[in-house]
Amino acid sequence: MSDLIDIFTTGGTIDKVYFDALSEYQVGPTAVADMLRQNNVQCDHRVTQLLRKDSLDLTGEDRVAIRQAAEDSEANHILITHGTDTMVETARMLGGIDGKTIVLTGALQPASLKHSDAEFNIGFALAAVQALPPGVYVAMNGRIFDPATARKDRAGGKFVD
Amino acid sequence: MSDLIDIFTTGGTIDKVYFDALSEYQVGPTAVADMLRQNNVQCDHRVTQLLRKDSLDLTGEDRVAIRQAAEDSEANHILITHGTDTMVETARMLGGIDGKTIVLTGALQPASLKHSDAEFNIGFALAAVQALPPGVYVAMNGRIFDPATARKDRAGGKFVD
Amino acid sequence: MSDLIDIFTTGGTIDKVYFDALSEYQVGPTAVADMLRQNNVQCDHRVTQLLRKDSLDLTGEDRVAIRQAAEDSEANHILITHGTDTMVETARMLGGIDGKTIVLTGALQPASLKHSDAEFNIGFALAAVQALPPGVYVAMNGRIFDPATARKDRAGGKFVD
Amino acid sequence: MSDLIDIFTTGGTIDKVYFDALSEYQVGPTAVADMLRQNNVQCDHRVTQLLRKDSLDLTGEDRVAIRQAAEDSEANHILITHGTDTMVETARMLGGIDGKTIVLTGALQPASLKHSDAEFNIGFALAAVQALPPGVYVAMNGRIFDPATARKDRAGGKFVD
Repeated sequence: MSDLIDIFTTGGTIDKVYFDALSEYQVGPTAVADMLRQNNVQCDHRVTQLLRKDSLDLTGEDRVAIRQAAEDSEANHILITHGTDTMVETARMLGGIDGKTIVLTGALQPASLKHSDAEFNIGFALAAVQALPPGVYVAMNGRIFDPATARKDRAGGKFVD
Repeated sequence: MSDLIDIFTTGGTIDKVYFDALSEYQVGPTAVADMLRQNNVQCDHRVTQLLRKDSLDLTGEDRVAIRQAAEDSEANHILITHGTDTMVETARMLGGIDGKTIVLTGALQPASLKHSDAEFNIGFALAAVQALPPGVYVAMNGRIFDPATARKDRAGGKFVD
Repeated sequence: MSDLIDIFTTGGTIDKVYFDALSEYQVGPTAVADMLRQNNVQCDHRVTQLLRKDSLDLTGEDRVAIRQAAEDSEANHILITHGTDTMVETARMLGGIDGKTIVLTGALQPASLKHSDAEFNIGFALAAVQALPPGVYVAMNGRIFDPATARKDRAGGKFVD
Repeated sequence: MSDLIDIFTTGGTIDKVYFDALSEYQVGPTAVADMLRQNNVQCDHRVTQLLRKDSLDLTGEDRVAIRQAAEDSEANHILITHGTDTMVETARMLGGIDGKTIVLTGALQPASLKHSDAEFNIGFALAAVQALPPGVYVAMNGRIFDPATARKDRAGGKFVD
């Protein structure tokens, strides 16, 4: 068993940045690698940008690709950053991969903002993926959810079960 | 068994703020409660400021008080924020409390700074304290340490084992 | 002559915030009043939100209202926050108001972002409006521009003349 | 007459950073150059670190060196960052340099903090030094002070006259 943590980024709010040239906000290069370095994270990990999409735009094909990446990884600890709107949907398609702990997280406010939950959530998910037994989990709002019962309460701005 | 998480703050770098009137940096009121609220943390928790000291100034009596608070708590999940210089020493005095998961964390840069590891570390420790089996742990630098072998590498600015 | 500074906010990038419920960025309540308080600004000033629009959406009527507010103000120092795309256009419609120093500023990155030019630019414009002789000025990128010759270099992400 | 702005940094709170290895806060390399670049400042300027001291530690000799630098500069616009405790004292020793506008500024909270007045104050001073007639000024709290009457109200955390 490897202690390596494979971190796959797929886009979502967490990676949104503001482009003046377009006067709009778009999914940019992932903020996760910089964040781990700035926080002096010393666990064995690797960051791979799988996708760069708002989660409302993810297709069935995209989800197959995410699952394939998780299956193909030699790591037993897999952290996936994902848009919050369809995070639970993706989590439900990741079941049944033997021996692997898979944790999905994201942010309700972009990491580029002064007041963002991105850094806290990535920290939270990074411990969850190391400490939890094999299975698939959604880690949001300081809680660890079972994808079978979790959902985003959009009006409340939080995940509930 | 309660799912409540008792968070005890003891001071340390994480809570240091700059006082212009003194032209110096001192341990202030804990930043942890605000941080949890700003990150919209929804797990059942309670924050208590036990002490407000640089960890180099903690006495044997202070450590007895920290242990007492952990023993007296009705919670089975206890998160302690602590200065990094003697975090391991305190952790070693918390062994043998049946059925409780106790996690210590802190920061190398104050939470009041633009570039601080405080938010990431609190997020990390909050998942660790929920997911780990009973025992005492030091959660720093994105890793979960056994206090028996952990130490702060001051020159390297990180915890190692 | 009054030393009061009248600050009129009209919207623009400087006041854009991210709305998770819409997965988009919109002009919100002005950030300027909070910013002045947090920076402990002691000059006599008053903040009024005139409009709350992206500057590409400003109409001729809006510009008439901005001019009217400047004329009606009893203050001789008027600071206007404005979207950058049509800031120069608005500035050119503010000429010929006797005895008043009018300074327009804004930001290329929202004040809500970690890396924003908003705070710097507001500070810059606040000194410009106190120190410059009567007239209309665009204050951006650490420079004071004459609206007659200024323009936004969108590709370069800065104002030039 | 040159439009160059010579920026001399002398230390003070604005440049204080936290050193974990010492568990204390010290004056570090100046934050001003990075700040100007991040805010995309386009005016012609040059940043020179003259000193790196808490202003309570400045000697008469240090002040002679600051004055000499201002006299020797070919620029007619000189911005000096300085600790707040003795900023007025230094300003009073800079009088009588013909044809030059000299502005002193600083911060009550280090630029390294999340909530700092550094960025705002540097922006403010940068406009003041371009727009004011020759003379010596203290630019703090969004106000432009005459050094003859200005003083720091330490308890109030602001400059007054």
